[in-house]
Amino acid sequence: MSGRYTYLRDPAAIYRESFATIGREADLAAVPEPLRPLAVRVVHACGMVDAVADLAFSPDAMTAGRAALAGGRPILCDVEMVAHGVIRRRVQSPVICTLSRPEVPIIARRLDTTRSAAAVDLWREHLFGAVVAIGNAPTALFRLLELLAEGAPRPAVILGFPVGFVGAAESKEALIADAPLFGVPFVTMRGRRGGSAMAAAAVNALAAPLDAEQEDRP
Amino acid sequence: MSGRYTYLRDPAAIYRESFATIGREADLAAVPEPLRPLAVRVVHACGMVDAVADLAFSPDAMTAGRAALAGGRPILCDVEMVAHGVIRRRVQSPVICTLSRPEVPIIARRLDTTRSAAAVDLWREHLFGAVVAIGNAPTALFRLLELLAEGAPRPAVILGFPVGFVGAAESKEALIADAPLFGVPFVTMRGRRGGSAMAAAAVNALAAPLDAEQEDRP
Repeated sequence: MSGRYTYLRDPAAIYRESFATIGREADLAAVPEPLRPLAVRVVHACGMVDAVADLAFSPDAMTAGRAALAGGRPILCDVEMVAHGVIRRRVQSPVICTLSRPEVPIIARRLDTTRSAAAVDLWREHLFGAVVAIGNAPTALFRLLELLAEGAPRPAVILGFPVGFVGAAESKEALIADAPLFGVPFVTMRGRRGGSAMAAAAVNALAAPLDAEQEDRP
Repeated sequence: MSGRYTYLRDPAAIYRESFATIGREADLAAVPEPLRPLAVRVVHACGMVDAVADLAFSPDAMTAGRAALAGGRPILCDVEMVAHGVIRRRVQSPVICTLSRPEVPIIARRLDTTRSAAAVDLWREHLFGAVVAIGNAPTALFRLLELLAEGAPRPAVILGFPVGFVGAAESKEALIADAPLFGVPFVTMRGRRGGSAMAAAAVNALAAPLDAEQEDRP
């Protein structure tokens, strides 16, 4: 291997130093103890320690999410990017993304909405007790909230990280306001920031403690 | 559909409004005209207009990348998340991620490095004229630069968006310093920010103009 570049190559050391940097720089004081590993993983996924300040959550989100994964309940993802960010060897749960199913464009046309929102209509049979991870589409989160308002089965936890300029902040504020009314724990990031890496990191935080990364090669 | 939530559901209108917001808020003055659609897509992927200030690039990156995709050259991705963020119907190129190949852990052990870096050793036969998109691992970008220093075939363009706290900023500074010496155009984001969504957005910018999103349902 060339000696041109000097960089850390040991995966366990990389994780350790990453999490140590986050521990030093991120202000986790407002995050309840059980949720701190999730906050650390979300920060690790985006490279921004100030993202902690925009995290919002129900205190029971971690417990509810861990129990769902321990019970093998499905992980429902709005996009394939989230599904492929979940560390599969850590979970027994099926990881489901309905976005590319052939009926989605038809439902989208019928409901006059996005494919992302239409794909959520195909979650119904899997919703009960599931871990929902939304990392892209505000319309997917809005559609999920609509289904819950109509009485759809309750997921165990909603990890709501849609990103962007149209509807992202609004959909997450709706989640914060209404998830408690629906009796569903949640974790989300206020504002425009979010994304599939954050959503997958939140799932991975439910699946394993931080030191799991120091046990095997990532 | 429930009337509980009011939100924009028309995908073309969502894209149009997103790009218009970015156009109003982002300072694109320092970005050369041909690269602006790429800058807009990267901002769109992360929800942060100030990300433009950290973009670094060679002026010919867009032309080189477009030509590579027009010629069907491979798209090499460090992680599956990037590969699954590429809008496949827009490209004829094979999208290749070698990270989960069975020989990767063996190479990683032999070279005493990460799986992400080891996976890059399997890119050699595909590298010539390829579009490289790195959205996660600093060690993958460092390893690519090492291979180029050793005389490996030149890709058409490197889209370098590793993220995080250990080596990300350093690997991207090395890219900015050395890619011109290797004769390889690049686009990157200085500092800790980055990620698979940005890397995929950069690929998608090479593949289609912004207004492509207004022609079909995303």
